[in-house]
Amino acid sequence: MIDLSSTIAAISTPAGVGGIAVVRISGAQAFDVCDKIFASPTGKKLSEQKTATAHFGKIIFENTTIDEVLATVFRAPHSFTGEDTVEISCHGSTYIQQQILQALMGSGASMAQPGEFTMRAFLNGKMDLAQAEAVADLIASSTRAMHRVAMQQMRGGYSNDIRALRDKLLHFASMLELELDFTDEDVEFANRDELKNLLREILRVIEKLTASFSVGNAIKKGVPVAIVGAPNVGKSTLLNALLNDEKAIVSDIEGTTRDAIEDTITLGGVLFRFIDTAGIRHSTDVVENLGIERTFEKMSKAAIVILLLDATRPETFGSLEKIQAQLSAEQQLVVVVNKSDALNNSCHCGLDPQSPDFEIAGQARNDSGIKLSAKNKTGLQELEQKLLECASIPNSLGSDSIVSNARHYEAFSHAQQSIERALEGLNTGLSEELVAFEIREATRLLGSIVGDISDNDILGNIFEKFCVGK
Amino acid sequence: MIDLSSTIAAISTPAGVGGIAVVRISGAQAFDVCDKIFASPTGKKLSEQKTATAHFGKIIFENTTIDEVLATVFRAPHSFTGEDTVEISCHGSTYIQQQILQALMGSGASMAQPGEFTMRAFLNGKMDLAQAEAVADLIASSTRAMHRVAMQQMRGGYSNDIRALRDKLLHFASMLELELDFTDEDVEFANRDELKNLLREILRVIEKLTASFSVGNAIKKGVPVAIVGAPNVGKSTLLNALLNDEKAIVSDIEGTTRDAIEDTITLGGVLFRFIDTAGIRHSTDVVENLGIERTFEKMSKAAIVILLLDATRPETFGSLEKIQAQLSAEQQLVVVVNKSDALNNSCHCGLDPQSPDFEIAGQARNDSGIKLSAKNKTGLQELEQKLLECASIPNSLGSDSIVSNARHYEAFSHAQQSIERALEGLNTGLSEELVAFEIREATRLLGSIVGDISDNDILGNIFEKFCVGK
Repeated sequence: MIDLSSTIAAISTPAGVGGIAVVRISGAQAFDVCDKIFASPTGKKLSEQKTATAHFGKIIFENTTIDEVLATVFRAPHSFTGEDTVEISCHGSTYIQQQILQALMGSGASMAQPGEFTMRAFLNGKMDLAQAEAVADLIASSTRAMHRVAMQQMRGGYSNDIRALRDKLLHFASMLELELDFTDEDVEFANRDELKNLLREILRVIEKLTASFSVGNAIKKGVPVAIVGAPNVGKSTLLNALLNDEKAIVSDIEGTTRDAIEDTITLGGVLFRFIDTAGIRHSTDVVENLGIERTFEKMSKAAIVILLLDATRPETFGSLEKIQAQLSAEQQLVVVVNKSDALNNSCHCGLDPQSPDFEIAGQARNDSGIKLSAKNKTGLQELEQKLLECASIPNSLGSDSIVSNARHYEAFSHAQQSIERALEGLNTGLSEELVAFEIREATRLLGSIVGDISDNDILGNIFEKFCVGK
Repeated sequence: MIDLSSTIAAISTPAGVGGIAVVRISGAQAFDVCDKIFASPTGKKLSEQKTATAHFGKIIFENTTIDEVLATVFRAPHSFTGEDTVEISCHGSTYIQQQILQALMGSGASMAQPGEFTMRAFLNGKMDLAQAEAVADLIASSTRAMHRVAMQQMRGGYSNDIRALRDKLLHFASMLELELDFTDEDVEFANRDELKNLLREILRVIEKLTASFSVGNAIKKGVPVAIVGAPNVGKSTLLNALLNDEKAIVSDIEGTTRDAIEDTITLGGVLFRFIDTAGIRHSTDVVENLGIERTFEKMSKAAIVILLLDATRPETFGSLEKIQAQLSAEQQLVVVVNKSDALNNSCHCGLDPQSPDFEIAGQARNDSGIKLSAKNKTGLQELEQKLLECASIPNSLGSDSIVSNARHYEAFSHAQQSIERALEGLNTGLSEELVAFEIREATRLLGSIVGDISDNDILGNIFEKFCVGK
């Protein structure tokens, strides 16, 4: 299924029109394919050039000059894929890009599948699987935090630690299995204390990594935020104000616009994702008396819940306790009092001092709540600062590895369970066969992270999420 | 105003996310700027590398590793701009692209203006102005014909011919002006017969080139087509059918979608542009009885007018003669009978055989009209073939130069007038001063095409239409 013998080609630069575009060709026939369509003014052949050298020439196919290009030659193994590679830098017209691709197809290359260049880099041993996956994360990164996590993983990340621990574990697994061959003789090849120490060490490493996933996932997918509140307190106005206030560093680049379904903003290098905001933005009847199941369901997916109150309508303040009762310990509540420009410290909005709302209205006015006016866009900065604090993503992420890949998290979690069962088995004197099985399972799971995968379907599944040309 | 001493940088690949992106740096400080942020694993400096060599390394700015990149070095004058140039090929994340650009700005580079790289290539003598302008046309080309015209011009086109003729003309202009200094002595430095022959030769070349502009402009802007017809004959259905039938070679690439205002289709490598189709598509009351001024005004801008008749409504057939009366000699009329599946050869749709419409209905049914059903999408191919024929754009454009640039067309037209006046002056014995003036004016105009321009504003105006990064 995975065929490394073919020579693949694809447009590697972003889709569309630009000053220049790059078409990449990789495989055993890369030079032969390119020599058929590349004409140097001095008659030199790309196949005879040194690695990492760039050459000016024309692309000519079926007697038509398609473009004047620059072709850079990379000889195996000194290329991204580890194979012979040519990168053709052409004029960035979509017509030219397509014509060059067609000329390459007509000269023996085949279209690269999504992620196929990176898959080849992995299969040719240029990087491990976790690094290869980080390439896709790096390309998708749109915030400082995403970039930091992806870059760390691409440059090795936890791969080396995991590989070293897995090798030690593999050694013990072999020893235990050897013992099983000699069950009658009561030998002990694997030192039980050493094994327990190793398992505990692995457990510590894995626990730290799996614990980092909540941060890693929030960085990658965005910190989920829900804005809740009674009807007409200004939820959609607040959301729009936040979106407009965004000073996204990439805002002048096409293709980085916010998600079609969920609105996102970047604050302090961290992505925030507003849950089901389509509902918030386009309907006014989402949260009726806060009693609707849908609100609570929405809230349950949020790491941060913004409860929006209306300063001019103290009857909405009563929702505070209802919301608090629904939140889990991990969720952060941010109380925001909208239309605060109407607030008057000496006034309780005509509330009866005996009413329960009177005290809540006072709370809303004290420091625990953020006062703003979504309409006038005042007080937004305080809310943005609060969101950043609640996101619990350290400004400097330090040198610790962070797991942001769901596949890795799952493998780590299952490996953790296997190791816990193996440890328990050792402590309670369970059968060696079961202990050996769990250890073997843990080595398999840890191996799957760095790329010890025998199943081509899994590989295909990982790389099909890449963009074409990488 | 035009400052060649600065070192400029820009993202040269299309905007958005892709496998890789290229950031280009050009100028005297290009190597110094890049050495500040480029870290090679072997410690080598880009400033010390040979031209046209690619080098792996990290981009590090303010102690943060932004990306692992490939930097290709081009030493002046062996680069596109003729200046020292570095092309940094990075991962195609928008965040990374922006960060690298910021790192370059922070290290002494300034943002390139649109077209500034190509303007520098021109100012540094790497190409003439007509070639530089063709670079923008080449990048914008989305059809085979556009590509062919732009490529020919980028590779020299009429530049060499114009330059040679202009040089000869300049010689005569000098001779004539020299004569003016010796008016009292009645000398003749410029041979009048040779001058007349040269002027006639130039006139032939220019006339051929200006005549090509109608084709060149149609290729570049699209052949203008108007669909006219009585209300409810199916104009919008026909347009939609044509648009859906389009087998655009670039249809799977973003950014090549049709113009927001005017719909375009590509047939046989030629672009067709439907005039004011927004009106056709979104309203049903555009053409009432074909008497509306707006219809005729719309028609006047079209090279091809499609008159759409409704086979089931013979009363619409009478519009044929009215339309024909409005067309100029250059305009092509294509009669299309829609809902032709309802046509029956033995029936004249209940028309009185004595009515004038009877004969027209018969005409509509004979071979002069194209019968189709826009709704069922039958017969569209015949119409598409007819449009291609009427466009008068030869399938093989041959080796003759075609003018597609409006600025050039204007300069050629004015030069033509000056030369005609000079010729007439010579024949009628007009003052030498006036002849010399016209010849000087013609040399100036011809010179402006290839780049003999002293006015920086004109240059700025030409290049500001380019994309950034080219």
